[in-house]
Amino acid sequence: MSKKYTAKELAELLNGELIGNEHTEISGVSGLENATGNELSFLNEKNYYKKLAKSKAGVVIIPHDIGISLADDKSWIKCENPTMAFSKVIELFAPPIIEYPKTVHPAAVVAESAEIGKNCHIGANAVIGENARIGNNTNICAGAVICENVEIGENCLIYHGVVIRDYCELGNNVIIHPNTTIGADGFGYNPTPMGWVKIPQRGIVKIEDDVEVGANTTIDRSRFGKTWIKTGVKIDNLVDIAHNCTVGEFTVFAGQSGVAGSTDIGQGVIVAARAAINGHITIGDGARVAPCSAIKDNMKPGEELIGVPAQPPRDFGALLFAPKSIERLKKKIKELEKTVKKLQEDSEK
Amino acid sequence: MSKKYTAKELAELLNGELIGNEHTEISGVSGLENATGNELSFLNEKNYYKKLAKSKAGVVIIPHDIGISLADDKSWIKCENPTMAFSKVIELFAPPIIEYPKTVHPAAVVAESAEIGKNCHIGANAVIGENARIGNNTNICAGAVICENVEIGENCLIYHGVVIRDYCELGNNVIIHPNTTIGADGFGYNPTPMGWVKIPQRGIVKIEDDVEVGANTTIDRSRFGKTWIKTGVKIDNLVDIAHNCTVGEFTVFAGQSGVAGSTDIGQGVIVAARAAINGHITIGDGARVAPCSAIKDNMKPGEELIGVPAQPPRDFGALLFAPKSIERLKKKIKELEKTVKKLQEDSEK
Amino acid sequence: MSKKYTAKELAELLNGELIGNEHTEISGVSGLENATGNELSFLNEKNYYKKLAKSKAGVVIIPHDIGISLADDKSWIKCENPTMAFSKVIELFAPPIIEYPKTVHPAAVVAESAEIGKNCHIGANAVIGENARIGNNTNICAGAVICENVEIGENCLIYHGVVIRDYCELGNNVIIHPNTTIGADGFGYNPTPMGWVKIPQRGIVKIEDDVEVGANTTIDRSRFGKTWIKTGVKIDNLVDIAHNCTVGEFTVFAGQSGVAGSTDIGQGVIVAARAAINGHITIGDGARVAPCSAIKDNMKPGEELIGVPAQPPRDFGALLFAPKSIERLKKKIKELEKTVKKLQEDSEK
Repeated sequence: MSKKYTAKELAELLNGELIGNEHTEISGVSGLENATGNELSFLNEKNYYKKLAKSKAGVVIIPHDIGISLADDKSWIKCENPTMAFSKVIELFAPPIIEYPKTVHPAAVVAESAEIGKNCHIGANAVIGENARIGNNTNICAGAVICENVEIGENCLIYHGVVIRDYCELGNNVIIHPNTTIGADGFGYNPTPMGWVKIPQRGIVKIEDDVEVGANTTIDRSRFGKTWIKTGVKIDNLVDIAHNCTVGEFTVFAGQSGVAGSTDIGQGVIVAARAAINGHITIGDGARVAPCSAIKDNMKPGEELIGVPAQPPRDFGALLFAPKSIERLKKKIKELEKTVKKLQEDSEK
Repeated sequence: MSKKYTAKELAELLNGELIGNEHTEISGVSGLENATGNELSFLNEKNYYKKLAKSKAGVVIIPHDIGISLADDKSWIKCENPTMAFSKVIELFAPPIIEYPKTVHPAAVVAESAEIGKNCHIGANAVIGENARIGNNTNICAGAVICENVEIGENCLIYHGVVIRDYCELGNNVIIHPNTTIGADGFGYNPTPMGWVKIPQRGIVKIEDDVEVGANTTIDRSRFGKTWIKTGVKIDNLVDIAHNCTVGEFTVFAGQSGVAGSTDIGQGVIVAARAAINGHITIGDGARVAPCSAIKDNMKPGEELIGVPAQPPRDFGALLFAPKSIERLKKKIKELEKTVKKLQEDSEK
Repeated sequence: MSKKYTAKELAELLNGELIGNEHTEISGVSGLENATGNELSFLNEKNYYKKLAKSKAGVVIIPHDIGISLADDKSWIKCENPTMAFSKVIELFAPPIIEYPKTVHPAAVVAESAEIGKNCHIGANAVIGENARIGNNTNICAGAVICENVEIGENCLIYHGVVIRDYCELGNNVIIHPNTTIGADGFGYNPTPMGWVKIPQRGIVKIEDDVEVGANTTIDRSRFGKTWIKTGVKIDNLVDIAHNCTVGEFTVFAGQSGVAGSTDIGQGVIVAARAAINGHITIGDGARVAPCSAIKDNMKPGEELIGVPAQPPRDFGALLFAPKSIERLKKKIKELEKTVKKLQEDSEK
């Protein structure tokens, strides 16, 4: 991380217009708040203008059509697409991407009956169980445990400490981040006079192509059939997907969100951070669940809900506004009381 | 999973009454929404009737006394207890249950001073620390870490990647799902002019018989004595049980719920999904905490609370209903204003 | 744990005044609720007085100036600082602290290019990646994975099952509890007609000195630069810190709390349990986020907010009080209606 570029070199690399000192030396990138004099930052969205004034960044990438005067304390590079330009600079300073060696580490434990594809990386202390099948070009990182009869497709990246329990199926291009658990038993018990009796969880988790699952997340195996994560779904950290749920194509679960059992979630749904979805309901395609909200009943396609329990945004707004509404009513009542009292006094005369 | 049964064979197995095509071939089970023509599904609760109309299931198990007309596009099996019958069919199609070999894997690391019972499975790359004691017939799966001086009873199932820290005690028939952490330090610091100073967490976690703990859950060791999970407690995924809590017999914690430190929870309490319980309080036997609710103060035995902070359901309902109540009051005030204005005008005549 | 002390011995050890039976034998410590006749407990805060009446503790440490009559069923030790005295007794009965052997376990996998300092413990099945550097006196416990090019300072304690991904940097005296993930990819995608396209997460996580991170927590690497946890920060279990956040000195995150991406959090902030903080905002020094609250916008230094979305406590109180306010208004309106009706009738006469 000791690379250095001058403002001039960076402007040339980005095909941008340089304004200010061309010799400013840059050795890294940072957000506006934390950037130091030898770091480059960028400006795009309008609510970042305030941060710009206080920023100590040495060079800032700005849009061509920026409408503010540019201070002398920085160098500026005007670009058509500052976000894209910034991505290029990120790559200049980022450490090299780790390439996992395409070998089975001698300290990995691979069952004899397991099938490992071509060009696979099996990291140190990873465990591959009996009859597991790993597709070509897939990386199983150090310390991951792939249990018995698991099937994993091609070009997958299963990070360190991940556990995928028996019989689960993953498609191609799937990424699972560290310490995530796929296929633990669903949470189901029958109440009896002797306490809770476990309901066997005899299904699997099926994850289709192009799915990414964050760190320390749990996706439970189903009681029967499959908990089903369809193509292109993206799931963040510490999310809990319960047994027998179906999650439609390209749906997103942000951090610490969750869904209870047997719920059917459509395509392109956005489940924002910390949102919770009830069990045994249906969420229509393209529905949007606001952050920290709790969905109790079915959602229609495209519906947006917010609150605990979640309601349409207008109703939620009315609830939050209740104290102010009450103050207004209080005033009106006071005035009415005055008027009525006066009328009473008049009538009693 | 390539087994096949005809509708007739299944009806006979279930002692049920077959209606429709007896040759329909079934090769799996599924919920009504996702079932295909060669899958069997079941109907029991009334709110599933809507899903039945759209279902493509080839065979559906239904109750004997079903009061709807049965379409021709499916085969039907009438049973006395559809849920139980469905469980039987689940087992027909489910993959065989994994039997862990009752051996110590050569790649497991077992301390010399550790005692391993009879018929135990110690999986690949599992670690058993000094002086740990593992009871008969207990399975410690691949990659689990059982730390120094831990005691685990008989017939337990400690899944992959679980960490049980030093001195913790588990009873018999305990199940701990993957990547869960038992006995990490409780979260306690004293504020000082030098920053937060760690309060030593010198107790343990004690888990009694028949407890099941989900995946990626945390149960912290106590500052002193024990964090105590009593017989028959069931805990779901991503739950946080803080130091010095006591959880009474048969209490249930659903997914992503949690409790802060030193709280005493009674028997048979239901803590629903995503619910949060404050520290240093007492929750009475049989209390019920609604999903996504936050308990601030003590709960009486059998009490039900909902909301953030939690209140009796009637009060919570009144809060949610506030905007409508306000609308009603607004109307009344408008009418009053009209009447009063008329009275005023009349009196001024 | 079979040590025993008489009430007299304990009173002498604590320089306290013994009241009651000096022969009572004590073999452990416990909270008031769960203490048995041969356990010692303590009383300090006033809300614990109720519990005292029901407690079966054999010996209780009490403040010198206690204003209640002392029952005959227990022995009592009066001390100036009962909390400190109790801490001393905790140590008497606590099991010895585990000392990790200052060696590299033969079943650890340490890359040849890795540098391990002096007096380090590298536990069984731990993995140290290429070019990783571990400072003196640092413990890497069994099953932890320290990835390529990671830098860890001196006197750190990295517990079992922790994963620290490539290039992340930890200072001195850092503690990371089991199964926590440091440096997984941040959650970022661009929407395209082909679905979500992953935005490379090319930065790192930097953790400064004296930071403690709980179990099963996730701190994501940044898109660029660093997700930055500054000196003395304390983070509890199951917390989610998203990419590109900065967390200021001595800030605290309690259990199951979280913060979305690119948020700047000041020094000495208290984020209570289960609280959520939005992305791309700024939280001022010393701000306080109440439990289970959700912060949507910037917070000023020292500001306290509560609720979902969070508001000043007075406004939140007004919201919770809305149903009662409405009842009061209803009454007033009823009275007004009566009065007005009477006026109407009078005027019609």
